[in-house]
Amino acid sequence: MSADNFLTLSQHRIQDWLSRFLEQQNSLSAPLTAAMRHAVLNGGKRVRPALAYAAAQACGGLPEQADAAAGAVELVHCYSLVHDDLPCMDDDDLRRGVPTCHKVYGEATALLAGDTLQTLAFVALTDGRLSGAQLARQVQRLAHASADMAVGQALDLAAEGKALSLAELEAVHRHKTGALIRAAVFLGAVAAGCEDEQTLAALETYADRLGLAFQVHDDVLDVIGDTSTLGKKAGADAEHEKATYPALLGLDAARDLASRLHDEAVAALAPLGARAEALRWLADFLVDRDH
Amino acid sequence: MSADNFLTLSQHRIQDWLSRFLEQQNSLSAPLTAAMRHAVLNGGKRVRPALAYAAAQACGGLPEQADAAAGAVELVHCYSLVHDDLPCMDDDDLRRGVPTCHKVYGEATALLAGDTLQTLAFVALTDGRLSGAQLARQVQRLAHASADMAVGQALDLAAEGKALSLAELEAVHRHKTGALIRAAVFLGAVAAGCEDEQTLAALETYADRLGLAFQVHDDVLDVIGDTSTLGKKAGADAEHEKATYPALLGLDAARDLASRLHDEAVAALAPLGARAEALRWLADFLVDRDH
Repeated sequence: MSADNFLTLSQHRIQDWLSRFLEQQNSLSAPLTAAMRHAVLNGGKRVRPALAYAAAQACGGLPEQADAAAGAVELVHCYSLVHDDLPCMDDDDLRRGVPTCHKVYGEATALLAGDTLQTLAFVALTDGRLSGAQLARQVQRLAHASADMAVGQALDLAAEGKALSLAELEAVHRHKTGALIRAAVFLGAVAAGCEDEQTLAALETYADRLGLAFQVHDDVLDVIGDTSTLGKKAGADAEHEKATYPALLGLDAARDLASRLHDEAVAALAPLGARAEALRWLADFLVDRDH
Repeated sequence: MSADNFLTLSQHRIQDWLSRFLEQQNSLSAPLTAAMRHAVLNGGKRVRPALAYAAAQACGGLPEQADAAAGAVELVHCYSLVHDDLPCMDDDDLRRGVPTCHKVYGEATALLAGDTLQTLAFVALTDGRLSGAQLARQVQRLAHASADMAVGQALDLAAEGKALSLAELEAVHRHKTGALIRAAVFLGAVAAGCEDEQTLAALETYADRLGLAFQVHDDVLDVIGDTSTLGKKAGADAEHEKATYPALLGLDAARDLASRLHDEAVAALAPLGARAEALRWLADFLVDRDH
């Protein structure tokens, strides 16, 4: 097995789960159902579900124990993309090479589809087979992550055209993307029945460093990457005068930071031994990736 | 005590709770925090919290047991109003006599505020003092209600300019407003520790009939009401060619229907005895009200 294989397996597994889950929901409004399927089933790397499955594995769990957790986290991610793409936010016409939800189904239906995808994340958790205590931890964590994402988006909006300090940039990322990455790992571990606080703390450190490393690396790729492998326009950040790590630190220091955060993430996994293998693959894949 | 007194007490209690709850949340984005406070603390009849408190009372519970349930339901209600008012939906400039959230804070912040209010409803439930089993029932029920509201809104959008049958009109209302009214009663009862399925079934019938009665009565008021007491323009439904009960059934038959549904709601409470007094007051208040 390798990171690529693990990611591919996770992608297939969560695609099936999400497709079946959406079919089970109230389908009284055909446009709303179609908009949700468009937003959820149109590809995506499924990084967060893979992290949930890998965290479950690191705690000795089986993939089927982590399906609902992986699905819930991905539903929150998809909801945030639909709303971020709306005209009043980033006003994007394309995502993953296809027209965004509101371009196909109209703004009102896209708004409702995003709203419902957030809701369904919580439905997904309660439809699982968790104990009450596990469910409480998962719901609380996912809800806090989802709230933090909105704060991150609001901070990002407020930062437009302003010079951010390193601490401010980190605060944006910790909320906007980091919170859900941390939640993915946490929910996967809890779904596998992990109640050991030391293991959960090690996973938290892993997810925290990985989430930041991922973002720093993403900023670096935007500078050095090639438009065709990135899947989005290289140099777009500089063009939009967005605060980035390379802009604040210089390219070399940003690369070093990504590398150091990656190493800290992997080091945190040491107490978990061989079972954390998939989490290590994902760290390597996400921070060395060129796409 | 009377319906007016009970409603006033509930309004004060939930206003305090919501204000304190919002203060405890992540306040890193000042505009987002302000937009949420604007959306939540600017009045409103607080019918759903009152129903949650009254249901808790009907099950022998104390108001403090139902605060989180009442608050969660109101947060979902407020979130739905913020998103319904957006330009891509109903495009309303005023609500409760003050500018709508997006008119004050801009569309992007209003969108995020609505998103976050939905999230915080689930945070509210997990911050309570429920057992795992109670929490699971509450989260599942609130999430299903929230999803149904979006379906109702989508059905309403699709119905614009079309002639609806009575069954279709009822489906819109059962989703758009009924689901959350039923959830308010259910969550209040569960919060009070009710596990008796017969009691829950009686409360479900009450809430189901009351939710519809409320809507039919609202349609009747739009025809016969006076703009000054309604707080919105009388005759607005007919002007917008909206499907309504009076338009489909005639005014007298619509009045009879509201009255019959009200009576069915109250009749369902018979097994609960005197403890259901507040639920009876609220039924009388909501269906006899002229505002």
